[in-house]
Amino acid sequence: MQHLQQLVIEAIETSQFPETPSNLYDPIRYILTLGGKRVRPVLTLMAAELFGMQEMDEIIPAAKAVEFFHNFSLIHDDLMDKAPLRRGKTTVHEKWDANIAILSGDGLLVKAYEEISKCNPIYLPATLKILSKVAMEVCEGQQLDMDYESRDSLTMPEYLEMIRLKTSVLLGGALQLGAILSGADEQQQQLIYDFGENVGLAFQLQDDILDAYGDPDTFGKIVGGDIMINKKTFLLVKLMAVISDDDKTVLQGLLDTSIETAPSKVTDMLALYEKYEIKIAADELKDIYTQRAFEKMEALNVPNDRKEALLVLANNLLVRQQ
Amino acid sequence: MQHLQQLVIEAIETSQFPETPSNLYDPIRYILTLGGKRVRPVLTLMAAELFGMQEMDEIIPAAKAVEFFHNFSLIHDDLMDKAPLRRGKTTVHEKWDANIAILSGDGLLVKAYEEISKCNPIYLPATLKILSKVAMEVCEGQQLDMDYESRDSLTMPEYLEMIRLKTSVLLGGALQLGAILSGADEQQQQLIYDFGENVGLAFQLQDDILDAYGDPDTFGKIVGGDIMINKKTFLLVKLMAVISDDDKTVLQGLLDTSIETAPSKVTDMLALYEKYEIKIAADELKDIYTQRAFEKMEALNVPNDRKEALLVLANNLLVRQQ
Repeated sequence: MQHLQQLVIEAIETSQFPETPSNLYDPIRYILTLGGKRVRPVLTLMAAELFGMQEMDEIIPAAKAVEFFHNFSLIHDDLMDKAPLRRGKTTVHEKWDANIAILSGDGLLVKAYEEISKCNPIYLPATLKILSKVAMEVCEGQQLDMDYESRDSLTMPEYLEMIRLKTSVLLGGALQLGAILSGADEQQQQLIYDFGENVGLAFQLQDDILDAYGDPDTFGKIVGGDIMINKKTFLLVKLMAVISDDDKTVLQGLLDTSIETAPSKVTDMLALYEKYEIKIAADELKDIYTQRAFEKMEALNVPNDRKEALLVLANNLLVRQQ
Repeated sequence: MQHLQQLVIEAIETSQFPETPSNLYDPIRYILTLGGKRVRPVLTLMAAELFGMQEMDEIIPAAKAVEFFHNFSLIHDDLMDKAPLRRGKTTVHEKWDANIAILSGDGLLVKAYEEISKCNPIYLPATLKILSKVAMEVCEGQQLDMDYESRDSLTMPEYLEMIRLKTSVLLGGALQLGAILSGADEQQQQLIYDFGENVGLAFQLQDDILDAYGDPDTFGKIVGGDIMINKKTFLLVKLMAVISDDDKTVLQGLLDTSIETAPSKVTDMLALYEKYEIKIAADELKDIYTQRAFEKMEALNVPNDRKEALLVLANNLLVRQQ
């Protein structure tokens, strides 16, 4: 996997863009060099290896397309969410401005399609179809996320569908692109897609859990950050679904306070989670998705030793320090 | 041409999009039903007919891709330019909000690529390449336009390159897509592209001229609108290039006033244009581009009777009431 990651990083970081207009291309260069683990494009290469593809040069354009698409969505999402930081660095709309973030994001989305066009033409209709399907779903997920922010309540199916669209379909799609370009049939493509989507769902639940229960020393963000801003995570949505009428008043009181005026907001919320065994429910659902992912991998018709790398990666992603 | 326009309008207005999330798909439905002449997608069909293609069903996806792309750029440009109206109707960011305009524009760009993917797969690498090339150039043009707004001066080559990118390459590209899908060779593709680009440049110059010299009864907008807001049109850029040092002070004075405090701003500017024969220069350059367009059409290796429709269209576009 390190070898593939190296390939991807090199391909991304040596991407050439025109010098001018600098307000269009500098933000693209900037976001692409902010780093990150490049998990999504690595998945594309790993899926290709899984299906016996040796020529990584044939897969690199699709991997770049996946990473370009992901970074396009980061630029626009950060703008829409008014986020000041991305990977510890100033976001594009903060470093430049909103218009430049809109347009350089647009440009990066076009560049994603430009990259995928370089794939083996035999597979072009199939790869384009998957990229566009995933891209529309990611847009739908972001729209739902924004719609739900202003809602008082959210059902669990609504929440799970939103995170599936916003974060999981791209993991599935990244893998499926690698499968398509290695000649895998549609049944095998679906299995590897499902593996990725389920890993993505488990990962997102883990993210929700870690925000409340992560080790302050190893968790990158402030523990309890989601609670402080009333973010509708699995934990909060689940709590709202099972809470008694009496405690609902307590919960509403907590949601109506800010951390500045009520320093015990996080611990009080954790007490409610404890009372209703919310973490247990989250761990259980995370395990169900993880299990499903492994079953899909199990069902894949390739030699077991080729499955190893993706299983190790999934394991690393899903057993982070808690 | 009316027949092709009817085909395009029907194809666009019967496009199906999912019902939800409504904040993602309603703005897409809205912008696509605002009407307009649909010149760009009609050009795609006309280019196909020019090269002898009979099966318009094979060209419709490319025509839709062109119109979807154009409408994506309208949504984002209107947001960036803070425009309240588009074709007399409320713009997307005004009717909904900025975030919804960003995301529905993104979705429409993805839909453009989804449409082009439905073209004859033999030509898919070529059509994708043209769509992405044109799309990046349109982004570059919009960025230059924004960059130039805050600049004091602008050279004529800078201005002409900006309008070429922002408005003309899409006309050329729309035609080239039709040519590709009809099996035209690269030389013929280039000729029809050049025809479109030159028509586009002539049309943009005409737009600049009409703003100052249009007939108030037939010109859709307020005559002198560009002058009132100091918009850097061909006329102003040309004037700045040739004006004497003495008159430069007069011009700067005019630029520093607003139409509210100086009702004679438009007539005073027209007097300067008159003194330096700016309209003559604009008409001359428009004629040069028009002439070039006709030469490209002349050089095309297809029977003359098939060229008629596009020549009539170009003529109609370029001899508007002044």
